[in-house]
Amino acid sequence: MKLIRHLHLAVIALALASCSRPHFDAAIEGEKLLRRDAEWADLAAAGKDVDKVVSYWSDDAILIFPGQPALEGKAAIRAYVTACFQTPGFKIHWISEKPTFSPDGKMAYMRGADEATVPGPNGSTMTLHTRGISIWRLDPDDQWRCVVDISNEAPEPKQ
Amino acid sequence: MKLIRHLHLAVIALALASCSRPHFDAAIEGEKLLRRDAEWADLAAAGKDVDKVVSYWSDDAILIFPGQPALEGKAAIRAYVTACFQTPGFKIHWISEKPTFSPDGKMAYMRGADEATVPGPNGSTMTLHTRGISIWRLDPDDQWRCVVDISNEAPEPKQ
Repeated sequence: MKLIRHLHLAVIALALASCSRPHFDAAIEGEKLLRRDAEWADLAAAGKDVDKVVSYWSDDAILIFPGQPALEGKAAIRAYVTACFQTPGFKIHWISEKPTFSPDGKMAYMRGADEATVPGPNGSTMTLHTRGISIWRLDPDDQWRCVVDISNEAPEPKQ
Repeated sequence: MKLIRHLHLAVIALALASCSRPHFDAAIEGEKLLRRDAEWADLAAAGKDVDKVVSYWSDDAILIFPGQPALEGKAAIRAYVTACFQTPGFKIHWISEKPTFSPDGKMAYMRGADEATVPGPNGSTMTLHTRGISIWRLDPDDQWRCVVDISNEAPEPKQ
């Protein structure tokens, strides 16, 4: 009897493990995701390693930036990042906050604030402030990847 | 033995039910969510029933529209919808597509395209085209509610 009971407990444990992440803790996972996002932002700010920066998006990711056609998939995203890093004076950084997870801990979204410096008129540069939402997916290799990136202009700062 | 086996099967079924939705089918759930979103868009287009329109957002929803402060929570959202519906000439409609679900079927996001008519200069009206992402949550009452709404300007149509 004891063996049968243990066997059944094992089956129950397996059933639970197959549909949910063992030990999923939103606070711990939130810190992990924010840390990963901060690493990503630092790599983007460095403006050098296209492959590494692009690897944080999923193969089927969608980027929706103001006034631009949506960028769908890795090839389009790689071309965009390459062009940004080749633009003299280009600089970007962002900070994300408040990750929210699906109950199974396999999808998440968070708010973010971005600061980008881009070429302006007559050789000057402009700093743009946007804010947005990133949506993340836990891929089968247990790595969080960004599947959606969307932003718009923050309100003008009050004078 | 038979009874014990049945009892254990019941425990396994209960364990599975507690962590995942029984019979979650992304295609069927996607149609359900798109139908709910279409009903919502029609109610918003009618521009009359503030309570009903507001009920599609969760109590803690966040709306992030271009150049505006983020609207956080029901009171801010209600004030915004009320003001829109009281604006002469205001009209909105949207269409969403391609819902993507978390594996447990309790969180989803989809792309959408919006058309809004708002007052322009000298008593005229302007039609704005935006596109965006809505994020949805299946609440404990088994109802999908929108938790995040974010949009930005679509590219200018090619001449």
